[in-house]
Amino acid sequence: MTADRSQLGDMDPEAFRREAHRVADWIADYLAQSGQYPVLARVRPGEIASALPSEAPATGESFDTIFSDFERVLLPGITHWNHPGFFAYFAITGSAPGILAEFLSAGLNVQAMLWRTSPAATELEEVTLSWLRKLLGLPDIFDGVIYDTASISTLHALAAARERAVPSVRTEGLVGRGTLARMRVYCSDQTHSSIDKAVILLGLGQESLRKIPSDAEFRMRPDALETAIAEDRANAWLPLAVVATVGTTSSTSIDPVPQVAALCRRESIWLHVDAAYAGVAAMVPGYEWILRGAEHADSLVVNPHKWLFTPFDLSVLYCRDMDLVRAAFALTPEYLKTVEAAPVRNLMDTGIQLGRRFRALKLWMVLRHFGADGLRARLAEHMRLARLFASWIDASTDFERLAPVPFSVVCFRALPNAVADADLDAFNERLLESVNATGEIFISHTKLDGRYSLRLAIGNLHTTGHHVSRAWALLQEHATQLQST
Amino acid sequence: MTADRSQLGDMDPEAFRREAHRVADWIADYLAQSGQYPVLARVRPGEIASALPSEAPATGESFDTIFSDFERVLLPGITHWNHPGFFAYFAITGSAPGILAEFLSAGLNVQAMLWRTSPAATELEEVTLSWLRKLLGLPDIFDGVIYDTASISTLHALAAARERAVPSVRTEGLVGRGTLARMRVYCSDQTHSSIDKAVILLGLGQESLRKIPSDAEFRMRPDALETAIAEDRANAWLPLAVVATVGTTSSTSIDPVPQVAALCRRESIWLHVDAAYAGVAAMVPGYEWILRGAEHADSLVVNPHKWLFTPFDLSVLYCRDMDLVRAAFALTPEYLKTVEAAPVRNLMDTGIQLGRRFRALKLWMVLRHFGADGLRARLAEHMRLARLFASWIDASTDFERLAPVPFSVVCFRALPNAVADADLDAFNERLLESVNATGEIFISHTKLDGRYSLRLAIGNLHTTGHHVSRAWALLQEHATQLQST
Repeated sequence: MTADRSQLGDMDPEAFRREAHRVADWIADYLAQSGQYPVLARVRPGEIASALPSEAPATGESFDTIFSDFERVLLPGITHWNHPGFFAYFAITGSAPGILAEFLSAGLNVQAMLWRTSPAATELEEVTLSWLRKLLGLPDIFDGVIYDTASISTLHALAAARERAVPSVRTEGLVGRGTLARMRVYCSDQTHSSIDKAVILLGLGQESLRKIPSDAEFRMRPDALETAIAEDRANAWLPLAVVATVGTTSSTSIDPVPQVAALCRRESIWLHVDAAYAGVAAMVPGYEWILRGAEHADSLVVNPHKWLFTPFDLSVLYCRDMDLVRAAFALTPEYLKTVEAAPVRNLMDTGIQLGRRFRALKLWMVLRHFGADGLRARLAEHMRLARLFASWIDASTDFERLAPVPFSVVCFRALPNAVADADLDAFNERLLESVNATGEIFISHTKLDGRYSLRLAIGNLHTTGHHVSRAWALLQEHATQLQST
Repeated sequence: MTADRSQLGDMDPEAFRREAHRVADWIADYLAQSGQYPVLARVRPGEIASALPSEAPATGESFDTIFSDFERVLLPGITHWNHPGFFAYFAITGSAPGILAEFLSAGLNVQAMLWRTSPAATELEEVTLSWLRKLLGLPDIFDGVIYDTASISTLHALAAARERAVPSVRTEGLVGRGTLARMRVYCSDQTHSSIDKAVILLGLGQESLRKIPSDAEFRMRPDALETAIAEDRANAWLPLAVVATVGTTSSTSIDPVPQVAALCRRESIWLHVDAAYAGVAAMVPGYEWILRGAEHADSLVVNPHKWLFTPFDLSVLYCRDMDLVRAAFALTPEYLKTVEAAPVRNLMDTGIQLGRRFRALKLWMVLRHFGADGLRARLAEHMRLARLFASWIDASTDFERLAPVPFSVVCFRALPNAVADADLDAFNERLLESVNATGEIFISHTKLDGRYSLRLAIGNLHTTGHHVSRAWALLQEHATQLQST
């Protein structure tokens, strides 16, 4: 093992250049033609794993060989999130400027734990989150920080709520302290499962999460929330936080944030707003109202990687008092102490993760490349397409809509005359599998009021009216076929 | 707002192709010439932020304009982690195959929460982690999962330990339950700060973390650990977990894992091994012993983004009983339920983060491009360079080494005759700032036995013997200059 650089360094720079151009072309072709792949991968469980060797190669392989295997072995096992027919879950886009930013970010490989370890990454995060905050119409008291996912953003929000309510928790913890009241977090029965995971992790237990019933349009009922809080107080529970959602995962319903915020202020309870998917719509003229009341929240999460064309992952937590997050977590071992010319923000202080990728770069490039008006127009177009699809459902006697369509997701089901009520769930489940098997579209499902509901979500920049029409044609066609089998 | 695709889609595909080639060339040049930048950014706090507008542009901008600003405004604020003179913290590499994989991953933008949402991402994670496990010599009982950072990996390990010790915690939590004993987690006084953050988050409190004294070579003292556990049991604490470190952050010391493991088995305490930085060295012939005892651990974390040339972020948790992690966190809302042809692994079940990037791709490309022997040779070379630097320190009368050098990090200080003992810390602090101001190298510091210690860490593939010699020349030169001022 000698120090021969040709053997011990990185890939030869000119080989890298050649391969980078190859990958650039491949991605350019892919983005232009992603609709030609089956959107949902067609492999069987275990098929990809069994096509790969059971050990790493002993000697290095050329990138050419590796890339061939990527195309031959892995690509058939990819579900194409950048396919125009991807209508499942929340449809997202890894847009071109975001992809270029990720490429640069990987090349730089900066780790923004301290200001010093990359001043540009730290300060660009501050600047882009301030841009986004203004676009959303949030007051400037809100300070922002980037995490990977909404699960982690919300976890930090609830940790800050716990820190505020029980400042001793950092040092003394929750266990074995008989004087501490049990704590309660409130959300609706439509709220995302990340809240369950957060209360488990925080040591509060799932029993601490009280799910408030929602109304006919899947919105949290403030009267039920008020009753629950009063009941809990009477039973010596400590109300810790309420999570209100703007754009729930099932039906994209909007909790009545103004009423919930007023209640939280009266009761001195932390209000966290989960606007992970739909929050960005607040920048669209006519949609400012969706974040009404959020100006009184303590924290709010919004995910540019969901519906703001930013490659996964990038979640933003806005917090009225970021010092509470820091109070919960900041600690600086000697090896990370730095002295700077002026006070600086060290991003490692606002979270449990020490290391941080240079994620702000992709948000910055996306915001600049599309521009505020460009983003607004694209979001509005997705909502227009969703309303259009909903209008076809509404006009059809063979389908019915199962929820309002405030944003870009439509919940519906087939309702053919020939199918008995008791068989509708099974019928729609078969319909889902049937249309997904075409490879042209990928939709997902949920349950609303106990009924199996199909979900069509629009959020990819490659999706046009053509793809939405095609989805509708396929659904009608397959529903008809299934009735006759 | 019409559906004109030219205005509402993504960047034009041919424009993307052009810009991707530009960025490919830029990164190729950057990697070849990264040594020409000042390694540590020279901007003042606030300088980058103040050079940027306070609002997002209303209309979209060309990528050309954005990229110019990247070079003009941001680049001077970048600390160059891919610079051959980066010797601070743990030096890392975003290697060429890893960068290409990240580019592809951004283009595909798959989100591997469920097997169905990307079978290839799920199964490639299983395969590559099995490759890595074999390279490290860990038994095949260990199942692996990829997270973003070691902080998150360790958090999950400790959550699993809590789940095993107190299965009621998921439902009932820790608070207000008088019958629960307070819990204790043990680590040495050299252990990483992420353990502190984890116990805070888990609701155990910092008091639950008992720091065991280390010996003269900064290794946890098993006798002191044994005494602490006995003392805690006598006082009705419940010992929950021990964290042993292979390659501590300050001095890269190695805790005596075999003895700690034997103690943990006798006492039925969860053993977590933090091998985030140094674990990969176990694949180098002659270094297998560093993970001896880890075969009895319950969990182990190793970070390919640290010293395995994988762009940040990619941390791996190996766990003897991954079902405990699933028991702690798995829950599947209706909208994520899927039916597959055979049982599948849904990665969202092994953690608090629902969304997951396609991180396995970069590890796979790195392992294949360098090959097992290529990785071994590079790690061995970094350790050889560290020993070489240490030998220069040892041979000098003006410097002294402050810790053994088991891996690729050297802890040392200047010790000039003319400087009084009481002034050594301040002198070395000035020396650190002075050599870092050259822009040629970036080193960091720590404290060992209360003494301010300089740290030189080798881990970048671009670093050669030339750069290490240059670091040594600069240190000697600046130490001499500082003595005469």
